Amino acid sequence: MKNKDKDMNEIINHLKTFGFVFQSSEIYGGLSNTWDYGPLGILLINNIKKNWWKKFITLESKNVGFDSKVILNSKVWQSSGHLQNFADPLIENKINNKRYRADHIYEEITNQNSSSLTDKELENWIKENVKEYDNSKTDWTEIKHFNLMFKTAQGVVEQTKNQLYLRPETAQGIFINFNNVQRAMRLKLPFGIGQIGKSFRNEVTPGNFIFRTREFEQMELEYFTFPNDDENAYKYYVEKSKNFILDLGINKESIRLRIHSEDELAHYAKATTDIEFEFPFGWGELMGIANRTDFDLKAHNKFSDIELKYFDQESNQTIIPYVIEPSVGVDRLMLAIIVDSFCIEQIDQKDSRIIMKLDYKLCPYKVCVLPLVKAQSLQSKKIMEYLNENDIETNFDESGSIGKRYRRQDAIGTFWCITYDYDSDIDNSVTIRNRDTMKQERIKIDQIIDYINKNSNTK
Amino acid sequence: MKNKDKDMNEIINHLKTFGFVFQSSEIYGGLSNTWDYGPLGILLINNIKKNWWKKFITLESKNVGFDSKVILNSKVWQSSGHLQNFADPLIENKINNKRYRADHIYEEITNQNSSSLTDKELENWIKENVKEYDNSKTDWTEIKHFNLMFKTAQGVVEQTKNQLYLRPETAQGIFINFNNVQRAMRLKLPFGIGQIGKSFRNEVTPGNFIFRTREFEQMELEYFTFPNDDENAYKYYVEKSKNFILDLGINKESIRLRIHSEDELAHYAKATTDIEFEFPFGWGELMGIANRTDFDLKAHNKFSDIELKYFDQESNQTIIPYVIEPSVGVDRLMLAIIVDSFCIEQIDQKDSRIIMKLDYKLCPYKVCVLPLVKAQSLQSKKIMEYLNENDIETNFDESGSIGKRYRRQDAIGTFWCITYDYDSDIDNSVTIRNRDTMKQERIKIDQIIDYINKNSNTK
Repeated sequence: MKNKDKDMNEIINHLKTFGFVFQSSEIYGGLSNTWDYGPLGILLINNIKKNWWKKFITLESKNVGFDSKVILNSKVWQSSGHLQNFADPLIENKINNKRYRADHIYEEITNQNSSSLTDKELENWIKENVKEYDNSKTDWTEIKHFNLMFKTAQGVVEQTKNQLYLRPETAQGIFINFNNVQRAMRLKLPFGIGQIGKSFRNEVTPGNFIFRTREFEQMELEYFTFPNDDENAYKYYVEKSKNFILDLGINKESIRLRIHSEDELAHYAKATTDIEFEFPFGWGELMGIANRTDFDLKAHNKFSDIELKYFDQESNQTIIPYVIEPSVGVDRLMLAIIVDSFCIEQIDQKDSRIIMKLDYKLCPYKVCVLPLVKAQSLQSKKIMEYLNENDIETNFDESGSIGKRYRRQDAIGTFWCITYDYDSDIDNSVTIRNRDTMKQERIKIDQIIDYINKNSNTK
Repeated sequence: MKNKDKDMNEIINHLKTFGFVFQSSEIYGGLSNTWDYGPLGILLINNIKKNWWKKFITLESKNVGFDSKVILNSKVWQSSGHLQNFADPLIENKINNKRYRADHIYEEITNQNSSSLTDKELENWIKENVKEYDNSKTDWTEIKHFNLMFKTAQGVVEQTKNQLYLRPETAQGIFINFNNVQRAMRLKLPFGIGQIGKSFRNEVTPGNFIFRTREFEQMELEYFTFPNDDENAYKYYVEKSKNFILDLGINKESIRLRIHSEDELAHYAKATTDIEFEFPFGWGELMGIANRTDFDLKAHNKFSDIELKYFDQESNQTIIPYVIEPSVGVDRLMLAIIVDSFCIEQIDQKDSRIIMKLDYKLCPYKVCVLPLVKAQSLQSKKIMEYLNENDIETNFDESGSIGKRYRRQDAIGTFWCITYDYDSDIDNSVTIRNRDTMKQERIKIDQIIDYINKNSNTK
């Protein structure tokens, strides 16, 4: 079944029923476009993050991790340009008092990119061509820019309160620490600094479930290179990012690479490639790899007394490095993984099952232990504890028939079901069932970990 | 060396020099009491979190994880009482226009707890007794209450903007999801829901490095019990929390338990035990275990149409569970671990070394591979990659003399140093050195993982 033929509402219901994603603040009517992650959702997220960290930090010996704060000195956002430029062009319809993204209206109607148009051109085009919109006659205002950063303030005395912002990206927290990290870790160019953390954007039109939310989590690597080596590094990280996505078990057919045309490139970028994913609601950006050049470091150098730079001992020169940035949203990536793995499988003429065909390393639970009858709970729990001790996340279920329990575990993506039965006490063996093939094998209890390590085909 | 005799400034400098903690936004003069975590700091934090998760979630089969948002519907904070009560009593000195925590002034001067005093009593006491403070004559105002929640707003139209708050604790995000989690995971009382996440408090007097910051991370478990079983669960989690701290390698002598007296208990708590740690600046709360009774669930039930409750099939009754909450701040716990493990060791009459005696499971790097000369880099890096592939976080250093490299690794807590030398190519062996004993052994390269697993004495 193709992703575009999957039913988003069915998936959302499934995720709520089984404890992956809940509407946030639901008992108070929710908060628009805000979602909390249940026990299975956070296990899936933890596995995604762990995998990113291993691939982009641990196994790239030139890269290191970092963790900067959500609330930084406001000068960071002044220098980076976010205070001036991180804004959406909004246009209001005076008839219904609603505001819309002007660029979205244009792109929706023309199917063309709006980035080459000035605000005035965009506004004029809308005023001339869009006489009805959103089920309303129109009387358009001018375009106004609306900054996407959440504002807050700290300090106790109203007059001297410090205007502060919640970061809209984790990247700047890395740039401003370039000198500190390079020096403390004695890093030699090229090297990367990566970070996983929450960002916040006061989006005008969030939506499509957890695809675009106001509070979200990013995994960003800022890879610093010699200015003349940027294109090699860019190519390397486009390829690496694609392989990272595929290695999570996402199907090749579900993604495509899209290279930004010159007129749609962000002002800081020399080149950008998006890895797009086909969601039920259409293709959407999943991961972006940008060549940010020396834009960011130079921007900070304009405003700060301390210059961010690198002294290259070999050439005896001071360099402002170029930056290659692979960036991906955790929530969005989780949604892609869920959509891609979700399927309804016909078993025979009468029976079907819902199954999340998650790659082994991402499964919230790798194993579920099922006692055939409740009298075998204790022995079954011992197996669960043993596997959990050995970092194989394991679940336990003693409710209802074995068949029903299998279905439940299939529906949450558990890779292995282990059944403890009447013979287990005698032969020290259990039956182990594979989620995808549904084939069962009889194995010795002390062989379980070996068996799992050998047979959990992970990409 | 006792913690109280350690020099906080020396530790802070050490953490900056070696890439654990940097002043945040340093190139813009910083942001008061805000710190970013460098490559080694975030590795240490990740290990702390992983350990908490394993102990409080994975290995407690009745507990599950959760992840709610920082920004929730504001009604959450109205119901929980945070909008009305989560405030500090401030008093202003009109002579120097500075504001202070009234309770802190009282406690500092009298060495007595102020929680039994009313605001008026506190104010009168200060006005009568504190004629000079903070190097200034005084003319005190009335006490005013200052709410500690950071405010923000979302939405694009100024008039209809939604007043929102950054959560001051993760706990409420769990309480409001009680029904969702219980139902989706089909949990039977008693059970726990745990969460790791950022919280924000606009503290009037943050300080002592990362001990009290405005942006911090919490690890909280909300354990729901039958109302008549709360005291057993409370005892269990006091004991478990203490063992969790000790198992991180913190010395027994560095902690003490403090039971809250009746008049200092928070309004929601029936009993509270603090686990305190001796920092160089004195004893401070490290972890708190509170019996929150049914206060929180009932508070939400007063304001929400949806009742948070549990139906017990055995007794055929509807129950509002009691809540036991072990709660610990990640940043503060990291500071305790650093302080406790930091020492300067005299090796002989002339030589000393700085060493972070971290428990093996917490070490940012478990191993560092050192080629004796640069010609052995390639083979050494292969060993590093092999260990990293196998989730043994490993570092590489080819700079300077072996002796200097050992010192550097001691200073950042690396448990093992592996030296690749001229004989290694021939005998397929390396020298492995233990951080604490400095003893060296010659082992086969293909035995490294076995050796490390056997000899890394972790508590």
